[in-house]
Amino acid sequence: MAHSLTPLDRAHPPFYAGVDVGGTNIKIGLVDNHGHTIAYQSIPTEEERGVEDAVGRMAEGIRDGAKRAGLEPREIALIGLATPGTMDIPAGMILEPPNIPHWRNFPIRDALSKAYGRRVVFANDANAAAYGEFWIGSGKDHKSLAMLTLGTGVGGGIIYDGVSIDGMFSHGSECGHMLIDHAETARMCPCGRRGHLEAYCSATSLVKRCEEALAAGKTSSLTKHLEAGQELTSLLMFQQAEGGDQLCRDLILETAYYLGAGITSIVHCVDPGLVVLGGAVNFGGHAHPLGREFLELVRSEVRRRCLPVPAEKTLIDYAQLGGDAGYIGAAGLARAMHQKVENVHER
Amino acid sequence: MAHSLTPLDRAHPPFYAGVDVGGTNIKIGLVDNHGHTIAYQSIPTEEERGVEDAVGRMAEGIRDGAKRAGLEPREIALIGLATPGTMDIPAGMILEPPNIPHWRNFPIRDALSKAYGRRVVFANDANAAAYGEFWIGSGKDHKSLAMLTLGTGVGGGIIYDGVSIDGMFSHGSECGHMLIDHAETARMCPCGRRGHLEAYCSATSLVKRCEEALAAGKTSSLTKHLEAGQELTSLLMFQQAEGGDQLCRDLILETAYYLGAGITSIVHCVDPGLVVLGGAVNFGGHAHPLGREFLELVRSEVRRRCLPVPAEKTLIDYAQLGGDAGYIGAAGLARAMHQKVENVHER
Repeated sequence: MAHSLTPLDRAHPPFYAGVDVGGTNIKIGLVDNHGHTIAYQSIPTEEERGVEDAVGRMAEGIRDGAKRAGLEPREIALIGLATPGTMDIPAGMILEPPNIPHWRNFPIRDALSKAYGRRVVFANDANAAAYGEFWIGSGKDHKSLAMLTLGTGVGGGIIYDGVSIDGMFSHGSECGHMLIDHAETARMCPCGRRGHLEAYCSATSLVKRCEEALAAGKTSSLTKHLEAGQELTSLLMFQQAEGGDQLCRDLILETAYYLGAGITSIVHCVDPGLVVLGGAVNFGGHAHPLGREFLELVRSEVRRRCLPVPAEKTLIDYAQLGGDAGYIGAAGLARAMHQKVENVHER
Repeated sequence: MAHSLTPLDRAHPPFYAGVDVGGTNIKIGLVDNHGHTIAYQSIPTEEERGVEDAVGRMAEGIRDGAKRAGLEPREIALIGLATPGTMDIPAGMILEPPNIPHWRNFPIRDALSKAYGRRVVFANDANAAAYGEFWIGSGKDHKSLAMLTLGTGVGGGIIYDGVSIDGMFSHGSECGHMLIDHAETARMCPCGRRGHLEAYCSATSLVKRCEEALAAGKTSSLTKHLEAGQELTSLLMFQQAEGGDQLCRDLILETAYYLGAGITSIVHCVDPGLVVLGGAVNFGGHAHPLGREFLELVRSEVRRRCLPVPAEKTLIDYAQLGGDAGYIGAAGLARAMHQKVENVHER
């Protein structure tokens, strides 16, 4: 996505900047009124240099992008900034994000606004990604969607009737921490509580369940790779499953089973009509047989567990924007705020 | 509530009608702009007489209420109509409600609108009850809330930033069907699917868990009542628990444990800031030691299972409006629509 830039003479003003902060990189994109990217760059987060340093580099990156796209800095109408939690969205504060530990209790929204000279809309990164998919991705023909981002953890974002469900305490759409097992013996989530969806569906959980199976004596083509010093990862498991390894295949499809349980609760809570699966852990997505089988199993589990109407009608699919969803969605949230303030027509 | 009517000279126009259809009774209230009831009556549903007959009696009931309150029929600005699902809210259709089986696939919204001569806002009964609590009950100082209604089943309603989460297919806020156990051995919900919250927290489930315990040889003061021909009900269990019966007490508090698991998923999905428990199954509520202990256990379970910020900040309490929440909320939703159409200030 980021590599197919729209030239300025085919772009539609107004223009927005979207900034998506991750533990490793900060993605900075300039996006037109239709969601087309007109400039993009990724810079290293280098979070240990501190948040004020990073905010300066974000503003510089937006200026640089404007220049490369052929815009004056003032032609960027508004900025969207997405960061991982924890955060206080109404206050514009980063609180204690585990992935960027040196950035703590800092008014990042207003700092970036001051550094660039434009209003900044602040969002959770998973909600921003969901908004990106809602605006121009899998959800572009829908009024609402829920998105689960499967990676090291499980992120969640819900857009309901065009509104990002940020929650009253900036913990809305934390779908990875919805519960699928109440038991005291349920799997432990990295957050320290048991039974959450993330404890069953993240790449971390997939690897952990595999380690347990191997320790219990299950045989797998993984063994020779591990003995050769390779690390056990979800990617290696995907490769072995594609190569015919039954254990890896079973564990991957078990993940789909758990996901179906979690999505059932999302559907019966907000009935979004569409649920999209994003993140790196998609087993090849539509392009691979296992990715298609994984998706079909998620769908059939949701049908099996949901009430008849949403079981029949809810669509479930892979996300379309890949790693670009976050900065595009951040820019889209900036655009939504701009339209609200300007009182121009919505979407 | 319904018995403390506000006289017309102390009421604030405009006035709205709220109609709450249940399997046994239809509650019809006229409500002023502050949510005060100025006329109220309950009529038998007699659903076997058919939905067209009932719609005529609803319109008659609103006219009768207006007369008793001292209003002209045309002084009712808008009507809110709440029915049990299943339904198609945008279409104004009742589909196949299990509690009113003779009413099927009927355009009830437009029929009532025609019968009375006013626009009708159509809502799910549990969402209407949540809106009632949001407007003038437990949630009156909050921007959002989720409500669980504990009775024969478990109803759910979510108001997010003033908006009722009706969902894309009229199945939003069906919190009773959120999942707390993914296992194939999980309890069967009356809807025919396993592991849903309702299968653990309804009065029906409480009685069922008690029957299982007695069949397994557990002793209880219940036995002499059952041998004397009394029916095993959640009320009888509450009475025995209050009288010191350990089994009834354990099973009631187990319900609080399950509720805490379900509320955790609601909190991590929409982060409503406030969760209220309504319905008849409240073990005396704040007025009784067991009701207070039940609520405290729900609170501590949510604290134990949630992420730190919502665990600390989310409020959990009993609802305040009792059986009046539905018609008051239906009237409140009519008022919200009226304000939107008239473009006057919200809430």
